[in-house]
Amino acid sequence: MKQYQKAIRIQTQPKNFFRITPQVESIVTESGIETGLCNLFIRHTSASIIIQENADPDVLQDLANFFGKLVPEDATRYLHSTEGLDDMPAHIRSVLTHTSEQIPINRGRLVLGTWQGIYVWEHRQWSHQREIVIHISGI
Amino acid sequence: MKQYQKAIRIQTQPKNFFRITPQVESIVTESGIETGLCNLFIRHTSASIIIQENADPDVLQDLANFFGKLVPEDATRYLHSTEGLDDMPAHIRSVLTHTSEQIPINRGRLVLGTWQGIYVWEHRQWSHQREIVIHISGI
Amino acid sequence: MKQYQKAIRIQTQPKNFFRITPQVESIVTESGIETGLCNLFIRHTSASIIIQENADPDVLQDLANFFGKLVPEDATRYLHSTEGLDDMPAHIRSVLTHTSEQIPINRGRLVLGTWQGIYVWEHRQWSHQREIVIHISGI
Repeated sequence: MKQYQKAIRIQTQPKNFFRITPQVESIVTESGIETGLCNLFIRHTSASIIIQENADPDVLQDLANFFGKLVPEDATRYLHSTEGLDDMPAHIRSVLTHTSEQIPINRGRLVLGTWQGIYVWEHRQWSHQREIVIHISGI
Repeated sequence: MKQYQKAIRIQTQPKNFFRITPQVESIVTESGIETGLCNLFIRHTSASIIIQENADPDVLQDLANFFGKLVPEDATRYLHSTEGLDDMPAHIRSVLTHTSEQIPINRGRLVLGTWQGIYVWEHRQWSHQREIVIHISGI
Repeated sequence: MKQYQKAIRIQTQPKNFFRITPQVESIVTESGIETGLCNLFIRHTSASIIIQENADPDVLQDLANFFGKLVPEDATRYLHSTEGLDDMPAHIRSVLTHTSEQIPINRGRLVLGTWQGIYVWEHRQWSHQREIVIHISGI
């Protein structure tokens, strides 16, 4: 068994989704690993990695709307506000979603379902550079 | 170190939980791996893998009730509705719960706590065939 | 590739956060693994592992407040109540957060971002001894 590790940087858009499936697939190919596991880790507490539907963009819009209502930017609710009104809601969204994900590899490809895409979800209200570490192990 | 990968298919019941602990344990045994890690990945965006209490069925019923209220099937809330009123809530429940899980293996067995069971949680309102990829690595 | 597995026990405080970053880092050092992956698994369904901001304690307080409102201890909402009014909310919080996490290792250290800490989050209203299994693999 061998392993392969690489970090990528993504420039996000405010409260938006950035699909990283192509980058991750290309790193899997680069690794030369045919059967194994691909682990994704985002080095931030106000952005997430999620696996969600890659077909209808309305799904992502509905996700954004739902989380906007569930975790509102309401100054009266939070003690932690020095970094902006969107910061504490971003931390909560991060806990409610995912800092790491893992996807098996088979025949040199991620075993994602037909409708599954991998996204970086920016929870802050302006653009950030986000770093994701991709760790692959296998044969 | 070696690895072992296998996919299983589960026929779910509408908005219900299907315990897969026995299937996963039997694949761990099949793998011959004594110390290692077992990774679970569900290839869908409207069903989840969760680890929850395996003793009192009321826990699962309460989970279902809670998520029914938290993510209601209300047509006025979602743009994405072509696949049915239950589809967008199912995507949100998937993001709020888990697409992948991982459990260490020790002495040839999953190190699950006494009260932990592994479940596939169907978020749609009818039965589906769901595929879970199980990836085990270790010695 | 080699692997290293160890369990730690943490005495938690009621509905509180216990930072385990130092323990996990010291086990990574102990493992001698320079490049690899560190997996964390908590053997309970009413406590979580989360990765969150390690700087301002208000963030943790706000997280606690948010979850207190989102998943209230309200007897009328739950069927499962024999283990106390805080038990079912604890299970729901566990499903909404994380039973397992994974962090890559590079140059013998976890690749945590500057602001990321690893916490055990106790969801019950009294102190418990919680067991976390740490599984590390790599080179």
